[in-house]
Amino acid sequence: MPLSRTVRCTCINISNKPVNPRSLEKLEIIPASQSCANVEIIATMKKDGEKRCLNPELKAIKKLLKAFSKERSRGSS
Amino acid sequence: MPLSRTVRCTCINISNKPVNPRSLEKLEIIPASQSCANVEIIATMKKDGEKRCLNPELKAIKKLLKAFSKERSRGSS
Repeated sequence: MPLSRTVRCTCINISNKPVNPRSLEKLEIIPASQSCANVEIIATMKKDGEKRCLNPELKAIKKLLKAFSKERSRGSS
Repeated sequence: MPLSRTVRCTCINISNKPVNPRSLEKLEIIPASQSCANVEIIATMKKDGEKRCLNPELKAIKKLLKAFSKERSRGSS
């Protein structure tokens, strides 16, 4: 019997807690794909390098993404 | 003489070309920090795993981030 296609998401537990953008070292966004039906958002924390999966449906996370895309505009006119 | 603090950004060349969200394997967002004054957005392409730095100030990239935060909502009521 051939092996079935492995369907695998990176995130097992998804946190519903908001994160402070200042405490983030980086944010990874993995689009939905054949291997995982969900968009996955993985935050790496500055303090200890801990990786935490965030819920992309939370308003706070949408705001976070918005904040990142705006961050550079602060200084510009 | 002590070594000065290393100031280092991940991105050297920043692409101004828009990317198709479907061709992305993942997107990394690195907030501005002491080691780099810019928000850095690094796209990993599905096809060849190529990493490409994107300009966070481009409208197309802001739209891309927005698209990701909306992607899961398609199926929900």
